[in-house]
Amino acid sequence: MTITRHQVRPGAYYDSVTLMQLQKALAALPGVVDAGVIMATPANCELLVTSDFDLTAIAARPDDLLIIVKTESETAAGDALAQVDTLLRRRQDVADKSYRPRSLRGAFGNFPTAEWVLISTPGRYAADVADEALDAGRHVFLYSDNVPLAEEVRLKEKGRAAGLLVMGPDCGTALINGVGLGFANRVARGNIGIVAASGTGLQAASVAIHRLGAGLSQAFGTGGRDLKAEVGGITALQALDWLARDEDTAVILLISKPPAQEVAGKLLRAAQACGKPIVVDFIGYPPPARRAGNLTFAVGLADAAELAVRLSQTHPASNGSAPEPRPLNGAIRGLFSGGTLAHEMLLGLQAVVAPLYSNLSADPRLRPPEHSASGANVILDLGEDEYTQGRLHPMMDNDLRIRRLRRESADPSVSLILLDVVLGEGAHPDPAAELAPVVAEATQAGKQVDLILIGTEEDPQGMKSQAERFTAAGATLFYSVGLALDAIYVRLRQANYPYPAVAFSRETFAAVNVGLESFHDSIESQGGAAVHVDWRPPAGGDERLMALLAKMKKQ
Amino acid sequence: MTITRHQVRPGAYYDSVTLMQLQKALAALPGVVDAGVIMATPANCELLVTSDFDLTAIAARPDDLLIIVKTESETAAGDALAQVDTLLRRRQDVADKSYRPRSLRGAFGNFPTAEWVLISTPGRYAADVADEALDAGRHVFLYSDNVPLAEEVRLKEKGRAAGLLVMGPDCGTALINGVGLGFANRVARGNIGIVAASGTGLQAASVAIHRLGAGLSQAFGTGGRDLKAEVGGITALQALDWLARDEDTAVILLISKPPAQEVAGKLLRAAQACGKPIVVDFIGYPPPARRAGNLTFAVGLADAAELAVRLSQTHPASNGSAPEPRPLNGAIRGLFSGGTLAHEMLLGLQAVVAPLYSNLSADPRLRPPEHSASGANVILDLGEDEYTQGRLHPMMDNDLRIRRLRRESADPSVSLILLDVVLGEGAHPDPAAELAPVVAEATQAGKQVDLILIGTEEDPQGMKSQAERFTAAGATLFYSVGLALDAIYVRLRQANYPYPAVAFSRETFAAVNVGLESFHDSIESQGGAAVHVDWRPPAGGDERLMALLAKMKKQ
Repeated sequence: MTITRHQVRPGAYYDSVTLMQLQKALAALPGVVDAGVIMATPANCELLVTSDFDLTAIAARPDDLLIIVKTESETAAGDALAQVDTLLRRRQDVADKSYRPRSLRGAFGNFPTAEWVLISTPGRYAADVADEALDAGRHVFLYSDNVPLAEEVRLKEKGRAAGLLVMGPDCGTALINGVGLGFANRVARGNIGIVAASGTGLQAASVAIHRLGAGLSQAFGTGGRDLKAEVGGITALQALDWLARDEDTAVILLISKPPAQEVAGKLLRAAQACGKPIVVDFIGYPPPARRAGNLTFAVGLADAAELAVRLSQTHPASNGSAPEPRPLNGAIRGLFSGGTLAHEMLLGLQAVVAPLYSNLSADPRLRPPEHSASGANVILDLGEDEYTQGRLHPMMDNDLRIRRLRRESADPSVSLILLDVVLGEGAHPDPAAELAPVVAEATQAGKQVDLILIGTEEDPQGMKSQAERFTAAGATLFYSVGLALDAIYVRLRQANYPYPAVAFSRETFAAVNVGLESFHDSIESQGGAAVHVDWRPPAGGDERLMALLAKMKKQ
Repeated sequence: MTITRHQVRPGAYYDSVTLMQLQKALAALPGVVDAGVIMATPANCELLVTSDFDLTAIAARPDDLLIIVKTESETAAGDALAQVDTLLRRRQDVADKSYRPRSLRGAFGNFPTAEWVLISTPGRYAADVADEALDAGRHVFLYSDNVPLAEEVRLKEKGRAAGLLVMGPDCGTALINGVGLGFANRVARGNIGIVAASGTGLQAASVAIHRLGAGLSQAFGTGGRDLKAEVGGITALQALDWLARDEDTAVILLISKPPAQEVAGKLLRAAQACGKPIVVDFIGYPPPARRAGNLTFAVGLADAAELAVRLSQTHPASNGSAPEPRPLNGAIRGLFSGGTLAHEMLLGLQAVVAPLYSNLSADPRLRPPEHSASGANVILDLGEDEYTQGRLHPMMDNDLRIRRLRRESADPSVSLILLDVVLGEGAHPDPAAELAPVVAEATQAGKQVDLILIGTEEDPQGMKSQAERFTAAGATLFYSVGLALDAIYVRLRQANYPYPAVAFSRETFAAVNVGLESFHDSIESQGGAAVHVDWRPPAGGDERLMALLAKMKKQ
C-alpha cells in the first residue's frame, strides 16, 4: 500500500527548470515512490493519471502549481511535502551566485552592445518582454511557446517595420555568427544559409550538412507558425532577404513544416527573385518538380542537406551575368491535351502564380468559371471528359485547340501560351501541319508560346520534322514539363524585398537572456557574450493584479 | 454579312472520326466560312459560341447531332447542308473496303487467338462491350471515357475474379509485348515495367526512358480513376503483381495522378512486398522520403524516368538473398521530441500503415483520442504546445518520455517504439543517462526500439558516447528519419497478391478492336494482329429501344 499526498499552490510561478528539479529532488527522498510537480494543465494531469496517481479528489486549475507525492508511509509523505520550500530555496540560492539585472532595461544599461534578446519565459508573459526588446531596437529570439497567434502577428509586423527579426514564438533554434541559440548542434561554418519554420528540421539538416563536410553561414528559425496564412511568412521573408544579400552565403536551404499554400507561394517567389541556388524542403508539400529555375525541391531533410552541399560546392558565388530573359507581364494560358502534363504544369505554376485556375484544381474556387476572364491564369486539360463527349481526344483532333489558341492570341491580357504535343501511335498523324500555323499567328500577335513536345525519332510523325516546324512558327520547345517550368520560373522573377532590411553585426554575438538560465550558459560556452536577467512575472504572476498594471500602463 | 444554317439529327450515331471529317469537308466547300459538326453537349456548344456561331435559336439535346455552317450566301449554305448525307456515305464507303465482323462474337469466331479487346465506342455503350469481352475470357483495353464510376468498379471486380485485366475506362495508352495500344510512342524494349494511372504520364516517362538509352518490358495503363477510393487500385495491383513476377522486368515505375491516400498506401504496401526496385511518382502526393526500402520517390516524370533508368542499370536482377529481418507484428508507437522528425516519420509511415494516429495529423479523425488504445499505431510530437505548458521541452526534460516509454513497454500490442534524441547546445546534458536504462527495459520486454540520433561529435554530449550507450541498451540507431523508415519498410513487407494472376502470351499480340478504326491500323503497323469490328450501337442508338432490348436480355 502506498500513500498519496499533495499541495496546490494557486497561481505560483517557478520556471520549468525549477519544477523539474523539485520533482527529481522529491522523488529522491527516502520513502518516496514517485513524485509529480506540474502546472495543473489537462495534459500534465493526464500524464500523472497514467503514472498511477489518483487525482480524482484534487481541484486544481491549469494556472495552479500541483505538488504530489506517492510514498511508502504517511510520515514519508509529510516529510517530503514539508521540504518543498527548502528545496525551492536551495535552487534559488544556487541561481543567485552573481549580480543579475532584474529587468530588460537594466540589462541594456549594463550591456548596451547586446543586439539580441532571447526570451524563454512562460508564454503568457513572453509577448510583453518581446515588445520591450523591440522597443529597445533589439532582435528577438522567442523560444516561449503557448503565445497566441494574434500576438505573433502583431510582434512580427512591428519587428518588420523596424528592420528587426522576431524568430518565434516556439522557435527552438538558430545559429547566428556561429553561436547556437536555444537548441543547436555544434556544426562547421560554411557557405550554406538556412531559413527554417521547423526547429528539429533546422537541427537535423545542419547536422547532416556538417557530416557531409560542409558548413553554415547563418541559420534562422522562424517559429513553426510563420508559414501559416495568418502570419504570412514575415520572418522567413526577412531571413531570406538577409541571406540573399549576404556575400558569405552561396546556397540557401528553406525548410518548413506543412506551409499554407499561399505563403509557400510567396516565399518561393521571393526565393526565385534572389537568384541564388535555393533548396526547398516543405515537409508534406508536394514538390512541383525536382528543379525549377534556381529552386531545387528536396524530399526529406537528408535529401535536402545532400542537395545543398552539392550545390554549395558547384555554386561558390551567385551567377548574375546571364542575359535577362523576356519577362512575363501578362496572363498564362495552358491548353493541354495530356492530363498528367497539365497536372505537372499546374503543380509547378501554382507554387509561384496565384490565383491559378484549372479544370484539374482540387479547389472548386479555382475551377475556371469563365475561361476568357481577362488577366486570369488558366491551365486547361482539354482531354477531360467534359471536352470529349462526341468529340475525338485533342491528341487526335486539333479543332478545339486551334479555336482556343486563336481566342488566347486575341486576348491582350495574355502573355504566355503553353501547349503540349504528344506524338506516337494513335495520335494525329501530323500535328504541326494544323497547329504550327496557329502558333505562328500567336507569336506574330506578340504572345510567347512554350510547347512541350513528347515523342521519339521513331514515332510515325517524325520528332525532328515536328520540332522544326513548331520552332519556325516561333514556339520555344521543351522536352519535359520540368524544363518548361525551369524557363518560366526565370521569366517570373519579381521585385525586391519592400521592407527595411534586417541588420546585425557579423563580428560578435551579444545577447540578453530572459527565462531559461541554461540558454545563457550555452551562449557563453560558445564564445558569445550574454547577460541573464533575473526575471519574475509582473505582480508575482497574480492575474488580476497584472491586468490592473497593464491597464495603468496604457493610460 | 454571313449566313448561318443548321440541321439537328436527334439521337444519330456516327463515330468521332466521321464527325471530324464531315466538319472538315463542309468547311472546305466553296463559300463556306466555318462549319461545326458536334454532339450538342454544353461544352461543345460553348465552343461554337466562342467561334462566333449564334446558337440562341437552336434547340438541341446533348444526344443530338448538330450540323451548322456559316457561309457567304444563302445558296452556299443550302448546298453545304445538302451534301451532308453524300459526305457521310463517302466516308462509309472507304471504311467498308474489306469484310468485317459485325459483332464481338463474330470476331472471336474468326480470330480465336485474340487475347485482347480494345474498346473505343462512346462511353454509354462501352460497358456492355467490355462485359461481352470479359465473358469471353479476354483482357480489355477500355479507351472510352464518360463511363460511370460504378460501372468501372463492377467491370474491374469481374475482371479481377477471372484473372483478366481491365485497363480503363479512359485508358489512353499501354505497351504490351512492344505493341502500343491507343496513344503510344515507339520506344525501345528493355527491363523497366510501368504501371500508370495517367496516360500522358506513361507516355512522357516512356519517351524519357527511351531517350536515356533504356527501354520497357511492359507498360500497363489503368485509367485515371483506378487509384480513387471507390476503385481501390484494382488494375494497378493486378499489373504490379504481373510485373513483380516477370523475369524480364528489373525495375517498376508507378505513376499516378493524385491518388486517394488509402489506395496509395495499399499500392505502396504491395510495391514493398514485391521486393524489386520501384520508382514512385504520384503527382501532387507529398513523397515521404527520397528512398524507403525498395521504394524511391520521384519528383516529376523526368526525375522518375532518370531514377528508373539508373536503377535498371544497377539492379539487373532482384535481390532475394538478403536475410529476412525480424518482422513487425504489432503496433508502432513514436515518442518524438522533435516536431519535424515526427512529421517526417508520420509522412513516411502513413504511406504504408493505416490507420496511423498522430497529434500532428491534419485529419481530426486521426488525432489520438486515447493514446493507449490497444493495437493503435501512434506518432506523437511531445514538443507540441499541449505537452509543454509549465513543463520543459522534452529535449531538456526526459520525464514525460520516460513515463510514456514505460507505458508502451507494458502494452502487449506494441511491437516497435520509435524515439528521437537530439543532442547539441541547450538540450539535456546527457540524455542516454536517463533514457538508455528505460530503453533497455523496453528491449528486455521484447520491444524493438528504433532511435534516431541527431548530433555531431563536437556537440557537448559527445555523439559517440551517447550512441554506444543507446546501442548497449538494445536500440537500433539511425542518423536520419529516412534511414529509419528504410529499415521499417523492409520489416513491414506483407503477404502475396490474393487474387487470380493475370496471364497473357509473351510471344505475340492479337486483339479485337471495337470503336476507332485508327487503333486497329496502328496495331497492324506495329506488327500486332488485329481485327476490326464494324460495330453499331444497339437499336441504332435509340435510347428507348435500347432500354427495351436490355430488359429483354435480362429476362
